[in-house]
Amino acid sequence: MHIEKATLADIPALSDLLSVLFTQEAEFTPDPEAQRRGLAHIIGNAAMGAVWVAKQDDRIIGMVNILFTVSTALGERVALLEDMVVAPAHRGAGVGSVLIAAAIAWARGQGCRRITLLTDRANEAAQRFYRRQGFAASNMLPMRLPLP
Amino acid sequence: MHIEKATLADIPALSDLLSVLFTQEAEFTPDPEAQRRGLAHIIGNAAMGAVWVAKQDDRIIGMVNILFTVSTALGERVALLEDMVVAPAHRGAGVGSVLIAAAIAWARGQGCRRITLLTDRANEAAQRFYRRQGFAASNMLPMRLPLP
Repeated sequence: MHIEKATLADIPALSDLLSVLFTQEAEFTPDPEAQRRGLAHIIGNAAMGAVWVAKQDDRIIGMVNILFTVSTALGERVALLEDMVVAPAHRGAGVGSVLIAAAIAWARGQGCRRITLLTDRANEAAQRFYRRQGFAASNMLPMRLPLP
Repeated sequence: MHIEKATLADIPALSDLLSVLFTQEAEFTPDPEAQRRGLAHIIGNAAMGAVWVAKQDDRIIGMVNILFTVSTALGERVALLEDMVVAPAHRGAGVGSVLIAAAIAWARGQGCRRITLLTDRANEAAQRFYRRQGFAASNMLPMRLPLP
């Protein structure tokens, strides 16, 4: 297995992985066309962040998305970690830990002073995974406004 | 009162308002130097988002920050709403509602399909305020990793 930054050629396989994730997450539903569009925005625009992938035998088996923003509290670039997913057939083998460690190291190298993510409150396995990587639960409440 | 986009000249007054906010929020502490640096990043870079201010007699009495990112679920630009604060002497007069409505309308015009914010779980007044603007509480849990 190796970890690399995704390119535009990876988009179909990444969109398939996102469909796995959004089927599993309570707040989202898969939309392959939207997923490809969103991935193209990120992969085509380095200022926005990057998608990192785990590959085995040239096939993508995991992905995670790092998006840049800025914090007025820290005065520096910070990151959002989104769309962390490992293909179901490859779970439990440490792929996620290697992948997220690479993404975190890269974000740090890009000057990010904090990484924030949102995970399903009901998904305790995900929370344990993120705690092992050093993340701590925040006491803040996310609220969302759709703009259709 | 009128609402306008902040300019670099507004940074000292905005930093003072952020100090009010970060004193009040459990997870943050004021750091005027960092606040000025973060504000300058946003105000100086239109691709990153914008700071909107409420002014009365040429003095800033409220602010809110809209930061752009992209959603792979929606395939479009989305926004983070941060640093919503009204100067204590001007609270309860509807400044926040006018300000956030202007910021939301602008984000929609910029192609944002969703706005996400994080608010203190203990701050029920803030949650009522955001619900009145159409925001709904998410069932996701924020987690954070500091990168010192």
